[in-house]
Amino acid sequence: MHTLFFAGSLRADSLNKKYVKEALRLAKEAGHSGEFIDLKDYPLPVFDEDIQNSTGFPAELKQLAEKIAAADALVISTPEYNGSIPGNLKNLIDWLSRLNPMPLADKSLLLLAASPGPLSGVRGLWHTRVPFEAVGVHVYPNMVGLGGAGDAFDAEGKLKDEKKRAMLKDTLAKFLKRAEA
Amino acid sequence: MHTLFFAGSLRADSLNKKYVKEALRLAKEAGHSGEFIDLKDYPLPVFDEDIQNSTGFPAELKQLAEKIAAADALVISTPEYNGSIPGNLKNLIDWLSRLNPMPLADKSLLLLAASPGPLSGVRGLWHTRVPFEAVGVHVYPNMVGLGGAGDAFDAEGKLKDEKKRAMLKDTLAKFLKRAEA
Amino acid sequence: MHTLFFAGSLRADSLNKKYVKEALRLAKEAGHSGEFIDLKDYPLPVFDEDIQNSTGFPAELKQLAEKIAAADALVISTPEYNGSIPGNLKNLIDWLSRLNPMPLADKSLLLLAASPGPLSGVRGLWHTRVPFEAVGVHVYPNMVGLGGAGDAFDAEGKLKDEKKRAMLKDTLAKFLKRAEA
Amino acid sequence: MHTLFFAGSLRADSLNKKYVKEALRLAKEAGHSGEFIDLKDYPLPVFDEDIQNSTGFPAELKQLAEKIAAADALVISTPEYNGSIPGNLKNLIDWLSRLNPMPLADKSLLLLAASPGPLSGVRGLWHTRVPFEAVGVHVYPNMVGLGGAGDAFDAEGKLKDEKKRAMLKDTLAKFLKRAEA
Repeated sequence: MHTLFFAGSLRADSLNKKYVKEALRLAKEAGHSGEFIDLKDYPLPVFDEDIQNSTGFPAELKQLAEKIAAADALVISTPEYNGSIPGNLKNLIDWLSRLNPMPLADKSLLLLAASPGPLSGVRGLWHTRVPFEAVGVHVYPNMVGLGGAGDAFDAEGKLKDEKKRAMLKDTLAKFLKRAEA
Repeated sequence: MHTLFFAGSLRADSLNKKYVKEALRLAKEAGHSGEFIDLKDYPLPVFDEDIQNSTGFPAELKQLAEKIAAADALVISTPEYNGSIPGNLKNLIDWLSRLNPMPLADKSLLLLAASPGPLSGVRGLWHTRVPFEAVGVHVYPNMVGLGGAGDAFDAEGKLKDEKKRAMLKDTLAKFLKRAEA
Repeated sequence: MHTLFFAGSLRADSLNKKYVKEALRLAKEAGHSGEFIDLKDYPLPVFDEDIQNSTGFPAELKQLAEKIAAADALVISTPEYNGSIPGNLKNLIDWLSRLNPMPLADKSLLLLAASPGPLSGVRGLWHTRVPFEAVGVHVYPNMVGLGGAGDAFDAEGKLKDEKKRAMLKDTLAKFLKRAEA
Repeated sequence: MHTLFFAGSLRADSLNKKYVKEALRLAKEAGHSGEFIDLKDYPLPVFDEDIQNSTGFPAELKQLAEKIAAADALVISTPEYNGSIPGNLKNLIDWLSRLNPMPLADKSLLLLAASPGPLSGVRGLWHTRVPFEAVGVHVYPNMVGLGGAGDAFDAEGKLKDEKKRAMLKDTLAKFLKRAEA
């Protein structure tokens, strides 16, 4: 089983990129196969059906769709923007949902969130579930939010707090076991 | 009182543009002042904080923000994409929420939806409320969804069905009365 | 594998009881094992922690919890009350969530809805997912809503419309196959 | 203008009763008229349309409905149960929604939440908005969650933390000003 790990934010210094990379490290440590991709390498315009009808699907969308189609499971760590899913992540789902076959169909997904504040992006996570579920993704019921993420990682990108690392590791293990079945 | 009318979809032939234009016509007929704008005239990149930090806010964002700031109320008709808010509309909110002062703060908003199918975009409407409410917008509790929109307008863009026109007119009147207070 | 089928409404003549019984019939026809229960046989007071602390858990709750714990999967057909989950179904989840072990944990759940109107309870379904997911239930992404349910069943309780029967059958088959894994 | 203050939980020692009473005290201090009611004084069975059809509406429901109808605005502080609205509060909305005239229609509502944990019930608040909005209530966009509520009140029930008191006071003032308009 191969799992794709990526963040729902684009900026280079994203806390969610750090968090999902740490999740990947922990998954590999536990013997799983996985790979990090950066959505910044797959730039997409804002979805407009007129673009789809005139110039077709962007090449970067097709490349990303192939990556997703080839993976058995996804782990996405996403910020909360205005109490909800980031526009860029929703935009990606909207583009992907136009493809046939639709690469997200029947995938297993674990959602994570990292935020500098104390609320750990939990409102955003619940809104991020919905469009994925609407296109047939099996979103794992448990989600792991990391509050105070600005100070949570050491110089090598590892979670400093043993308890938070253990919780992430445990949820990852349960998720990957179920996704395998 | 001046109200801004726009659609949550970009494509030129959008049913939601037709629907919101009909709402504007009915509002004017009832003596209200309002104006239609097309989000396609305000193209925005997908939000990325690195863009904001390197090149600043797009000129089109600032122009649109001025339009919104100058309006007393908003009427938006939006499609449902994958059970939720369209990525492009969420992207617009994410960009606007970075401005200071934030042009959406304390605005009154009526949400409409038009869809070719029978469900009239009602799931999407409920998800569209959330990020607006999260940034302090007073979203009117009633929303008006138009199912079967592909066949709902005559050659002049008027709603053929008298009952549907009356319902939209009535909700608009109540919304504008409250927004005025 | 044994699946429990019940409705989210209490009244004797509930359309959702009819719909979930039809789902059970189709599941049995396809060789699955399942059983219908009527929540009316498990009357519960409105949850109040003072009741739990003074008189303990109601006997009917414990009986129902045993039924759920013994099942491998659940199929629930639920009406939409005021755009959301019915209070009585939420009340049941609130009571169950206080038990230890919690009988809903890690169960697989398929949600259905029947409604007399055209919108088929789809808003309610999306709100019904949330508390189940919050307590660790794997809610199947696809849900099947039946609009116009007042006229949908024949004298024997079978769905008259072949297409609607096929759609329900197909979703049930996919759900039960995954729940088995 | 007269405002009704109540909590979404029933237990006698509820943190949300404390919080909403403190909100009432602050509102009175600012010259507003208001009154606390305890939902425990209005016990209701779990909603079942068969009850409505056989014995009619409970007397306690009618008394509570009169209180609500006579008020101009509502302030409700509610716990989060399983990531969503408490079953008993949803049950109350379901009962009220059956009355004609419907006492909640067009009311203004401010939602608060108190919780012992750090997340301050914010997920629950967003789910609590929905059924109120579905029946036509103007739910104020800002909501105030109080985390760590177990230790937040002094012996007289006042919020110890000056900043949290100021934030609640400020939101109350803005809400009541708008509700008055």
